[in-house]
Amino acid sequence: MLGHIARRLGLLHGQQICHGLNGTKLTQLLSKETHRHLQSSFKTISPISTMSLWPFSSQPRDFSQPNSSWSPEMCKAYDHYNALCDTDTENGEEQNKGSWRKLPSYNRSIKYATGGIHLSKLIQAKARLFTRNVREQGATFEYVVFVNKEEKSCVCVFQAGRLLEGAPGHVHGGAIATMIDTITGTLAGYLSGPIMTANLNIDYRSPMPLGSVVLIHCALDRIEGRKTYITCKVTSTDESKLYTESTALFVSISVGHLFGSRN
Amino acid sequence: MLGHIARRLGLLHGQQICHGLNGTKLTQLLSKETHRHLQSSFKTISPISTMSLWPFSSQPRDFSQPNSSWSPEMCKAYDHYNALCDTDTENGEEQNKGSWRKLPSYNRSIKYATGGIHLSKLIQAKARLFTRNVREQGATFEYVVFVNKEEKSCVCVFQAGRLLEGAPGHVHGGAIATMIDTITGTLAGYLSGPIMTANLNIDYRSPMPLGSVVLIHCALDRIEGRKTYITCKVTSTDESKLYTESTALFVSISVGHLFGSRN
Repeated sequence: MLGHIARRLGLLHGQQICHGLNGTKLTQLLSKETHRHLQSSFKTISPISTMSLWPFSSQPRDFSQPNSSWSPEMCKAYDHYNALCDTDTENGEEQNKGSWRKLPSYNRSIKYATGGIHLSKLIQAKARLFTRNVREQGATFEYVVFVNKEEKSCVCVFQAGRLLEGAPGHVHGGAIATMIDTITGTLAGYLSGPIMTANLNIDYRSPMPLGSVVLIHCALDRIEGRKTYITCKVTSTDESKLYTESTALFVSISVGHLFGSRN
Repeated sequence: MLGHIARRLGLLHGQQICHGLNGTKLTQLLSKETHRHLQSSFKTISPISTMSLWPFSSQPRDFSQPNSSWSPEMCKAYDHYNALCDTDTENGEEQNKGSWRKLPSYNRSIKYATGGIHLSKLIQAKARLFTRNVREQGATFEYVVFVNKEEKSCVCVFQAGRLLEGAPGHVHGGAIATMIDTITGTLAGYLSGPIMTANLNIDYRSPMPLGSVVLIHCALDRIEGRKTYITCKVTSTDESKLYTESTALFVSISVGHLFGSRN
């Protein structure tokens, strides 16, 4: 809940980083051009002006970059969607050829917040995003999100690590719910600005073995006033196996809500 | 999903450990008497015979014991429910005075399983229960479950650590979903034997600040054939504030399902 302002802010100040399967060639485009480019992508949907809230003094680490823990299946799926993000910079102007872009993923949303009134400043400074709280690569959530602004949809490539166990050898239902909340919320925040989770309704169709690489497909169902409805399916990478079907409802909130005007 | 055979097995072989607020006096009753006692508690519901499946060669650690990370509020809530678990051993026979008992909580369900066909033996041996995968006390999920067999209900005292963040200073919706899946599944497994999660439907009513101590109240709604329906509310410890309302559906499975007959 309240979990997606983070990604919205992250996106506004984000990096668009596309690179090859081997992860060795990295084109990092955190520049005024990228900045303007990302801003412009919101003009057709629901722009918010929270740029000045960005609290990081230095460039944060993007945790959705390929690393050595990624399996060949993870790399293949990443490469497939990453190729759809290709930009053309030959004429000196950055132009995205398609509708897809990769979103960055950080381990905090905002560094110092006033929301956590129960926390000391020390503990607040040590807080970490739930899905990025384990340092060991591949141990928990390895994931990367690609969003399609025209289709108002996104796909997350997710590899489930060994520390996400529920029943022996299988992913905990709560870990799957965590990814569904995270990715549906990412899309809702992308489309509607600051939001919080109001409802998650998840049907679990098949147990998911630890180590699985899956796709989390999210799409906008509808927006009604302050309510944004997202649908979500989790499937195998070849989409032949269905793991979960779910719906999520998010409610738009004011940024002030986050900064202490309410708890 | 599939996440609760663990607790069922853990319970069958579990320890009943009640001790004072300061955590210094520990009465550990893992004995034939306890064993028989816990078995007998299932006679009126749905006993299963999985005793021989217990794979631990030595006594596993119970992670639901008080530790130095527990806040005074957590200790107070624990002490309240723990007092309801009082046993009388004066006459040499262990007798539970009330209907409440504390359940143990481990960091694995079954040490070596055949379910995770995608995992190497090495990775399987290193797998850990999602809610017990961080060693640092207090950093993620601190919780203890008390079950009331007569009322077919349970209460979990849960303290949310700094690594469970969603929005700044607040608990991630997925972390709350994880606890709801875990505790509703504990009760369903207690009542119906081996089960897997089929549906979770969660309404988020209020954002939960990091560091909060809350109660997760679960009760049996109904059992229909292989389906066990559980209702759940998450509230503040004084029950004045409602954080979530939810329902969960679990489907009974055979133990063979877990051991490789299906994935």
